[in-house]
Amino acid sequence: MSDRVETLRYDGETLSLIDQRILPARFETVTCSSAVETADAIRSMVVRGAPAIGCAAAFGVVLDAHRAAGQLRAVFDAELEQAFSVLAASRPTAVNLFWALARMRRIWERLGDASSTMVAQALEAEARAIYDEDIAANRSMGSHGAALLQDGARVLTHCNAGALATAGHGTALGVIRSAVESGKSISVIADETRPFLQGARLTAWEMVQEQIPVTLISDNMAGHMMSRGAVDAVIVGADRIAANGDVANKIGTYMVAVLAARHDIPFYVAAPLSTIDPDTETGAAIPIEERKPDEVLGFGEIIWAPEGVRVANPAFDVTPAELVTAIITEQGIIARPDRAKVAAHLAAAQQSHVSRGNG
Amino acid sequence: MSDRVETLRYDGETLSLIDQRILPARFETVTCSSAVETADAIRSMVVRGAPAIGCAAAFGVVLDAHRAAGQLRAVFDAELEQAFSVLAASRPTAVNLFWALARMRRIWERLGDASSTMVAQALEAEARAIYDEDIAANRSMGSHGAALLQDGARVLTHCNAGALATAGHGTALGVIRSAVESGKSISVIADETRPFLQGARLTAWEMVQEQIPVTLISDNMAGHMMSRGAVDAVIVGADRIAANGDVANKIGTYMVAVLAARHDIPFYVAAPLSTIDPDTETGAAIPIEERKPDEVLGFGEIIWAPEGVRVANPAFDVTPAELVTAIITEQGIIARPDRAKVAAHLAAAQQSHVSRGNG
Repeated sequence: MSDRVETLRYDGETLSLIDQRILPARFETVTCSSAVETADAIRSMVVRGAPAIGCAAAFGVVLDAHRAAGQLRAVFDAELEQAFSVLAASRPTAVNLFWALARMRRIWERLGDASSTMVAQALEAEARAIYDEDIAANRSMGSHGAALLQDGARVLTHCNAGALATAGHGTALGVIRSAVESGKSISVIADETRPFLQGARLTAWEMVQEQIPVTLISDNMAGHMMSRGAVDAVIVGADRIAANGDVANKIGTYMVAVLAARHDIPFYVAAPLSTIDPDTETGAAIPIEERKPDEVLGFGEIIWAPEGVRVANPAFDVTPAELVTAIITEQGIIARPDRAKVAAHLAAAQQSHVSRGNG
Repeated sequence: MSDRVETLRYDGETLSLIDQRILPARFETVTCSSAVETADAIRSMVVRGAPAIGCAAAFGVVLDAHRAAGQLRAVFDAELEQAFSVLAASRPTAVNLFWALARMRRIWERLGDASSTMVAQALEAEARAIYDEDIAANRSMGSHGAALLQDGARVLTHCNAGALATAGHGTALGVIRSAVESGKSISVIADETRPFLQGARLTAWEMVQEQIPVTLISDNMAGHMMSRGAVDAVIVGADRIAANGDVANKIGTYMVAVLAARHDIPFYVAAPLSTIDPDTETGAAIPIEERKPDEVLGFGEIIWAPEGVRVANPAFDVTPAELVTAIITEQGIIARPDRAKVAAHLAAAQQSHVSRGNG
């Protein structure tokens, strides 16, 4: 399925996004024709998941670039600057968004005085590269991570770090997919992941599609399952990894990590290198998005809480590196991550990138 | 409000229960005329909360006793035995249910050859005593527990251990109410408590009614709130406390206790003595009710998870005594509970009961 579900599809004119707000009840797509529409789709969580947000933002730039192409560079550049600005403001926590926009900006800057049409074409090529590289990275992450899972493993995951959170295959679910592809029998325990229910709706749906056995639980059942010996490993994705290995991910990840540590269950984070932000010293420096109260007061159109109640709705939390057994990237494994190991991994990856002639 | 909301009301002929499945959207009562109807109401969670279940079961016995009164004792006794049986099978975890039924049975047995009408009257008096004693116990627990809360404390609670879970005032929320009554400024953080949402619906509603500031969070946000220094204490209720101090309570309580321990936040359990089961050696011996999958697949009539997913739905979990800072009962505080301290507390309570002439 991971190669069949097109979380994002750019057809040269518009960007189609699977509407993840209404899955699995309905399968519909939202079509974006501009950066503003793409930013709206990111903000409202039509598309979510750090790598998918990065890809969507890149194509959002492309949409405005093509619309402005043919104009004088000064006009084109002003419109493009506006596109970058609106996309950067869509969601604050996932660093892949800023990473993808930075890649797009470098292409723009590199082309100097080229015509606006040439710049637009180059930006489209870069967005397509970001997209293709994401799938390749997930495949690579999958094969590195699959080696960590025993045959028969019961793997708990939180939120959705699947095909729907990426260009395809997924990060955490990519590891599970790759393990299954390699012949291992894996079953999944999916935290429902309130308030947006990415686990109940998206992870469960992806796993059912692929006939990988999946058991849905409320988030507050994870500790009980662990205490009963029903969990062999935890794998989650990440929205930003600080230079010291602290991991920002969907709210509730920290709870799972604390429980896993208590029960000596390995806690793995699967994320592409683009999720590691060397400019963020520790998790304390990661901005945590606070979303609207209505998500916690109910679900969708339904409100079940009484009037007059206050709400906190942090969308992410930070898991300190000390609770992370290993980070799985497309370049391999960072076991027991800390500042030195993360830096060494990034340096080795950079070296490998240069030596492949992509520097 | 605690003295105004009548979670249960017995009028001499029927038992009216506030329908806790639909609060706060609608305020309706369900009327029970028999033990079978009362057992159904307990099973379907019209009424829930360990002490409230105990009271409801006692009145369930009374309903059948009055219906069978006037018949020969053999017929009456057979019908009463049936009433006890159906009520005992309604929910397995909360020991207050079995404790209340045992109290009722002792009255029945004590009356020897008395007429069925006399037995029915004695059973009604005992049920009313259980009800009245529950409110008195909660008031006493409240004043013992209130001393543990600082002025200005931000107190996290899980599920609903309020007036709605008892005959009135509440256990965990009773402590909060008593602290507020004593002039302290207390604010509450309520875990929404999936899947039945007792926190979002019932605790939030009780606190809003009393104008005690309450912030609603998804269960998976508790760790983040603690890591940000936003929680000063945790108070929860209990469905059964084992002889060694292990606490069975609503699913997710264990998660909160583990997180509180990590953050050096006191974790209090407020429960009447009837919740302590000396016949249950440790938490491992407490039966954990597994409820129907549809509760986890969605909420109420709504299903949001895809077809084909499996579900686990344990209604309770066990928090080991080592994570409990103190148990608050109507007889005082058991700090850092263990087998010896729990036994000593029960013995002292028994002594105090006897010395008051109630033995």
